[in-house]
Order: sequence, then structure tokens, then C-alpha cells
Amino acid sequence: MWVVCSDLEGVWVPEVWINVAKKTGIDKLKLTTRDIQDYDKLMKYRLEILDEYNLKIQDIQQVISTIHPFEGALEFTKWLRDISRFVIVSDTFAEFAKPLMKQLDEPLILCHSLEIAEDGQITNYKLRQADPKRHTVEAFQSMNFKVIAFGDSYNDVSMLKQAEVGILFCPPQNVIDEFPELPVAHNYDELKALIEQHIYEE
Amino acid sequence: MWVVCSDLEGVWVPEVWINVAKKTGIDKLKLTTRDIQDYDKLMKYRLEILDEYNLKIQDIQQVISTIHPFEGALEFTKWLRDISRFVIVSDTFAEFAKPLMKQLDEPLILCHSLEIAEDGQITNYKLRQADPKRHTVEAFQSMNFKVIAFGDSYNDVSMLKQAEVGILFCPPQNVIDEFPELPVAHNYDELKALIEQHIYEE
Repeated sequence: MWVVCSDLEGVWVPEVWINVAKKTGIDKLKLTTRDIQDYDKLMKYRLEILDEYNLKIQDIQQVISTIHPFEGALEFTKWLRDISRFVIVSDTFAEFAKPLMKQLDEPLILCHSLEIAEDGQITNYKLRQADPKRHTVEAFQSMNFKVIAFGDSYNDVSMLKQAEVGILFCPPQNVIDEFPELPVAHNYDELKALIEQHIYEE
Repeated sequence: MWVVCSDLEGVWVPEVWINVAKKTGIDKLKLTTRDIQDYDKLMKYRLEILDEYNLKIQDIQQVISTIHPFEGALEFTKWLRDISRFVIVSDTFAEFAKPLMKQLDEPLILCHSLEIAEDGQITNYKLRQADPKRHTVEAFQSMNFKVIAFGDSYNDVSMLKQAEVGILFCPPQNVIDEFPELPVAHNYDELKALIEQHIYEE
């Protein structure tokens, strides 16, 4: 039996922070790990900015609810839930993912979480564990499932390598070049074809 | 962060085989592990009976689609998916569970599976692993989640004991007597109160 583990941002929905920056008009929120490599520093900086603009969790969730899944994402995830077991494994935070999961008919998502004060102020964040994507694949394998995993970026590679089948979905060229052993899907049709190759074999 | 793991039959839906027996009028399908203790022998006997009556997977799925979740089950599972992460962990088979999962808005279910011939004949069954419920809780703990688990019967006890919080839901008296250390909920309201005690504590 298979479990399908997928990334969230870049696969089913656009990048959340970039869109929050665009929609709030706060340019400083556009910084990513390409600008500040230390994720801890980057997140603390982002939380400071939210505080500076007095943005509470409910404001951010309102903004995120105006971000929509890519065309075909809902149908694709429904297909995966129909033919197999489907879990989104993401480095986002549960509270940010919530308005997006609603639009995808509430699949299971395993990700990080935020610490939120009573008034909605985001006071801190909690990473679930180090290298969570690889650990998640290992956990499903310990349950005797085989895993098909896909994602678009560096932080997915350990998950893709741990899985029985790992697929890069619309990755940047440098990731393709660095991991030539991983098959690449450039759109949902190609991704579906690669999944079908494996999932119906048992 | 919590994951909620629940049993299926007796918690959200009635016992599947007993209802299939009732609805098909085939009394021999009413036998349970109380009658034939060896689960392997029991399942082989059941598959022989399905064969004898020429019942294919699509016939059984049709019968199972007329079984409905208990009153309040859909709302309760939606609440769990809203406040936390929710996974059904069951000793049923994925192909039998399918019509029931549809009625519960497709939560993730981890269970066993069937081997089915092209014409729909059920030729065999595959157990995912030994003691799957305990292993599932351990797997989520390896992902750094804490687990609240509940179920109604003997085959749930190893899951309930492995979980940070284990709750018996409407169990038979002999299970209550044998495991006095496990809290008991007699209805959804009591179950909800017990879950709320823990899930909002972090």
C-alpha cells in the first residue's frame, strides 16, 4: 500500500509569505532564505514586522484566505485521496495553512505551528522537528507503507530521497542540475503519469 | 502538537460485517472473532462465503454504502480536523471503508487492504502489519506529535496504551473491567470533554 506525501507551496498553492507581502504591501515580508539564510533569524524578523504593523493571526489568515490553490489542485488532490492515502508535508505553520486546507477540502497536513497570544499576536513559532519531511516518510515506512513523495525545492530533497518514489515538481533549474537522479514533472499531467506508473503496480 | 487517532467501527460507524450479514441476509457472515478466534481462518471463511454467493467487491461496496455513520459522527470528525490533525486507524480494509469515508468527508484512514481480481472477486487480503494500531501511534510520536487515541475494543488497547492520552469509547463491560486505568467516554459529549481537557493544554 502506498502513501502519497507532497509539499504544499509551489505544488498546490503559491508561496505564502511572498503573497502576504504583496497583499499587505509590506515589502520587507518578501525576504526569503535566499536573503536571510538562517531560517530562525528570518522567522524572528518576520514576526517583528507583523508586530510592527500590528498584524494579528486573524489578519494574516484573512490575507491567506484570498490566496487560492492553483488551477487543477483541488481535483488532483481529490484524485490522490480517492486512489491512495494523501498527506501534505510542509514547512509552513498550521495556522497559516488552515485557510488553504479549507479550499482543498481539508486533506491532512503535517507541518509546524505558531504560538499565539489571546489577542491573536503571533509571539513565537515551534518547528515540529529537524528534517521533518524525511522523518515523516520514515514514519509512514515504519507503518509498512511505501511512499511516493513530490516537492519543488531543496527542503524537499531529503523527503524525495527517503521515499520509494521521489519526484521533483516544477523545480528551479539549479535543483534539477544538482539532483539529476530525481525524475522531474513540469505540470500536473506529467506528475499524474509518473504517479500512475508506480501506484497501480502492486 | 497533537494528532488524534481513532478507531472506526463502533466509534463512527456500526460494525461492517454484521451489517453486511444483515443486509445480504447471509447469516454465516455474522460470525466474528468471538466465534472463530483465529482472524486468518475467519477472514478466509468470509471470503469463501462471498465467493459462494458470487458477491464481488462492487456488491459489497454497494451494501456498505447503505450503512451510515452514527448521528453526530460527521460533525465530530469535522471538529477534530478543525482543531487538530485527525487519522482513523482501523482493522478494516481500505476497499470496504471507502463508501464510509465518503460519508465522513474523506478523512485519512490507515487500515488493511484486499486483493481483488479484474472481475471484482476478492481473492485475498493483506494485513498492513502486526499490531498496526500501536505502530501507528509510535510513528506519529516519531514525528514529534503527541497522540490522543480512542477506540471501543480489545484491538484498540495497545494503541490507547501507547498514546499520551488513551480513551475507551463505549466499550463492553469486560474491557472496562480489564483496563480500569483507561478513562471511559459513554457518548460523544463525554468524549469531547475528555479531548478538550488535553488538546487545549499546550
